[in-house]
Amino acid sequence: MTEHSLWRFSRAFHRAINERQLDDLEPLLDDEVEWAIYGPIDMFPFFGARRGKEAVLEVIRQIGENVRVHRFDRESIMLGVDSASSMMRYSLTALDSNKPISLRVAHFAQFKAGRLTSFRVLVDTFDLVEQTVGYPIHLPRMAI
Amino acid sequence: MTEHSLWRFSRAFHRAINERQLDDLEPLLDDEVEWAIYGPIDMFPFFGARRGKEAVLEVIRQIGENVRVHRFDRESIMLGVDSASSMMRYSLTALDSNKPISLRVAHFAQFKAGRLTSFRVLVDTFDLVEQTVGYPIHLPRMAI
Repeated sequence: MTEHSLWRFSRAFHRAINERQLDDLEPLLDDEVEWAIYGPIDMFPFFGARRGKEAVLEVIRQIGENVRVHRFDRESIMLGVDSASSMMRYSLTALDSNKPISLRVAHFAQFKAGRLTSFRVLVDTFDLVEQTVGYPIHLPRMAI
Repeated sequence: MTEHSLWRFSRAFHRAINERQLDDLEPLLDDEVEWAIYGPIDMFPFFGARRGKEAVLEVIRQIGENVRVHRFDRESIMLGVDSASSMMRYSLTALDSNKPISLRVAHFAQFKAGRLTSFRVLVDTFDLVEQTVGYPIHLPRMAI
């Protein structure tokens, strides 16, 4: 039984971020890969949509310049033949401020012949913004 | 081939919200169902964790008092035997302000004997907060 593409991608992705070593990752990306991390791109320029291997390698390099991953736990996971989704909890450090950040993330991935063709990531962005600015943002209470 | 539990749950869930009719939903919830929508509970008291059928019916009733669902599109979906995950885009109205809200959401669901046993929902919360307050929240730019 061969290893699911998710595990190989996940190892190479985290190595790319923490060791700034993209060599393992490059052959695991489809030339036309579609990529999106949904969130406020004004604050996090490495969020947003990218298309194609070069653009995705560049954005992963940018992520690696901004955060270090300490650990991650998959709280939920689904594996298909050529697809995978997970809900994960990450412990990160923001490198510019040296602040710890704890973040919940969901991803949906598609692979073809072992290469990533689509990756969409949803982030608990309000929690991320508050931890990044370092103070609570005052919110009105919605009627209930 | 029987229908996947997700479809029955999804119909009953949206009917519960828009028609405030919980009768179809009640038999589709496990007595010990675990439920969580991650996000700022100070602003949205119907976010957060709930446990057990009664608590989940009550929180779905609260959601129905606060929003109306106009449409939803599943952008990604994975179905397992007793599990499902989707990334979805919702078009909602906030009932207190009559404001339209467009929202990306990811859910992971587990079923047992056709009943929901676990439901975890991640929301693009910063986007939701900005749309709810109705003005952009100023953010510093993270170093890059």
